Amino acid sequence: MTDVNTLGEFGLIDHLTKSFPITQPSTVKAVGDDAAVVDNGNFCTLIATDMLVEGIHFDLVYTPLKHLGYKAVVVNLSDIYAMNGQPRQITVSIAISSKYSVEALEDLYAGIRAACDAYGVDLVGGDTTSSPQGMIISITAIGQGEKERLSYRSGARPGDLVCITGDLGAAYLGLQLLEREKRIWQEHPDVQPNLEDQKYIVGRQLKPEARRDMIDAFRKADLVPTAMIDISDGLASELFHICKQSGVGALIEESGVPIHPEAQMMALQFKLDPITCALNGGEDYELLFTIDPKDTEKVRFLPDIYIAGEILEADAGIKLNTKGGKLHEIKAQGWKHF
Amino acid sequence: MTDVNTLGEFGLIDHLTKSFPITQPSTVKAVGDDAAVVDNGNFCTLIATDMLVEGIHFDLVYTPLKHLGYKAVVVNLSDIYAMNGQPRQITVSIAISSKYSVEALEDLYAGIRAACDAYGVDLVGGDTTSSPQGMIISITAIGQGEKERLSYRSGARPGDLVCITGDLGAAYLGLQLLEREKRIWQEHPDVQPNLEDQKYIVGRQLKPEARRDMIDAFRKADLVPTAMIDISDGLASELFHICKQSGVGALIEESGVPIHPEAQMMALQFKLDPITCALNGGEDYELLFTIDPKDTEKVRFLPDIYIAGEILEADAGIKLNTKGGKLHEIKAQGWKHF
Repeated sequence: MTDVNTLGEFGLIDHLTKSFPITQPSTVKAVGDDAAVVDNGNFCTLIATDMLVEGIHFDLVYTPLKHLGYKAVVVNLSDIYAMNGQPRQITVSIAISSKYSVEALEDLYAGIRAACDAYGVDLVGGDTTSSPQGMIISITAIGQGEKERLSYRSGARPGDLVCITGDLGAAYLGLQLLEREKRIWQEHPDVQPNLEDQKYIVGRQLKPEARRDMIDAFRKADLVPTAMIDISDGLASELFHICKQSGVGALIEESGVPIHPEAQMMALQFKLDPITCALNGGEDYELLFTIDPKDTEKVRFLPDIYIAGEILEADAGIKLNTKGGKLHEIKAQGWKHF
Repeated sequence: MTDVNTLGEFGLIDHLTKSFPITQPSTVKAVGDDAAVVDNGNFCTLIATDMLVEGIHFDLVYTPLKHLGYKAVVVNLSDIYAMNGQPRQITVSIAISSKYSVEALEDLYAGIRAACDAYGVDLVGGDTTSSPQGMIISITAIGQGEKERLSYRSGARPGDLVCITGDLGAAYLGLQLLEREKRIWQEHPDVQPNLEDQKYIVGRQLKPEARRDMIDAFRKADLVPTAMIDISDGLASELFHICKQSGVGALIEESGVPIHPEAQMMALQFKLDPITCALNGGEDYELLFTIDPKDTEKVRFLPDIYIAGEILEADAGIKLNTKGGKLHEIKAQGWKHF
């Protein structure tokens, strides 16, 4: 009997799905990117799906149900944007134990509704059932994209520039803070948590946004990233996916990795290196993408995009040039929930 | 605080989703049919999704994981066929606790693979994560259909004939048998269950098939059902959906409801009325559909289709004409898991 931890998340998915053939002419891209791609002739349908499990992905002690509903939608839309596509519809399936009231579900769906409104997507289906314990949310996002404008993980070429949107590490530090305050509150129920000075990082954890604005900006600038992925598991892991699937290496400048001042401060409070939080933190839902150097001018004047490095030949590996001028190998820590 | 049981499954979905507007021009049909319908110009994309939770929808004491994987796919494909469409792709998301080994997941995926092979669909994505307890499977099926050939729940008209494929009640009786044998085995671990004489009903429970053959036969016969739904919750519940959404009533002849001899026998053993099992049993994954009477000849010579009644005006209600010649009102018992 083999423990699933021996394979890790990505190894496990690879192992379980590698024997599945592609038989449908309409299947353009199956397992292995942010979203599956189905050819419709006119355009492609993009399909992304994510499952959130109480006690694993969220803790209702500090997560308002409305925020949870919002986030559960946003993380799926982020996968569609990461293909350079536009989400149009979602399905929402939930399993809930008897501890949840109708009012609790109304809060959850108010958050789902708010995300649908904010991103212009329609709720078109789903399933509602019971669970013996806790809440499970499974959302599928359906999107559209033009075949020639899709960005896969596999398109990065040596010489391409590596770009990052927004800033990284804040969502992870928001989580660390919420977990710390939860522990304090559990030990001293009379002490109220004070999160006033950390609104940014708490907001990044509890109410992330997907970068629809970037996809719109790319279109206006007539830019198609050569490769793209959303940053859900940390920069290191996503960079590793792009390099592996593109068959390339990369060099990232620490000084080019955007980190919010509040995240910097909180990292130091937790005695963590801010760049480590950016590399391995996760849940930022920013975009990591690569561009042909001839498109540099198109990117340079777009707000909130940072050129953080360069794609190299595969044998150069995946490396970080620190502010101190040292080269460190970047390792994808990936995911280990079990 | 309102208990979710006060609303029931369908009431709960209605309540939670009623405020969601449709804003995308491509959304043809949202919540409320077997599958959502998205217009692509060339044809429609159909999206159906189902969540299966250990301890609620399946019991691994008597469900081999390979069968579970097969069934989890089939129940979703059944929803696409029920729109008179063809499934093309699926996504599979699973959450598992640490008790599952890689080998157990291989069995599950072998069943998923077998269903993909049998029905010609591609696995194109999904999510794999951990759960604090048990297994949760969420599958989304993506299909195609021609806009003019789709069958909704809302298209039945007074005078239409009501048709049923295959036979009903067997899956429910298979489940009753498996549950009984489980109890016996738990009380007397030395007694081996004997299911040899009940292969049909056990097979209907553990390894159901979706009626792809019917959709193919409809096409060959140039038949488009005026309304259609798959029978997952029992004939009564599905008939109720069609009548409610079509704004009609119905009269069903007990003698027209197909029940397999093995299911008849087992119902009597359990002191159950076979027609009650057919009406309220569920998990048959047969098709309930209505046809314009001018299409009667097209249906009459198709194998395994039974004309069981007629659509009436709404004020006639939904009634069963028993073999004894009495009229009974059919009530949708629906679902109450919580």
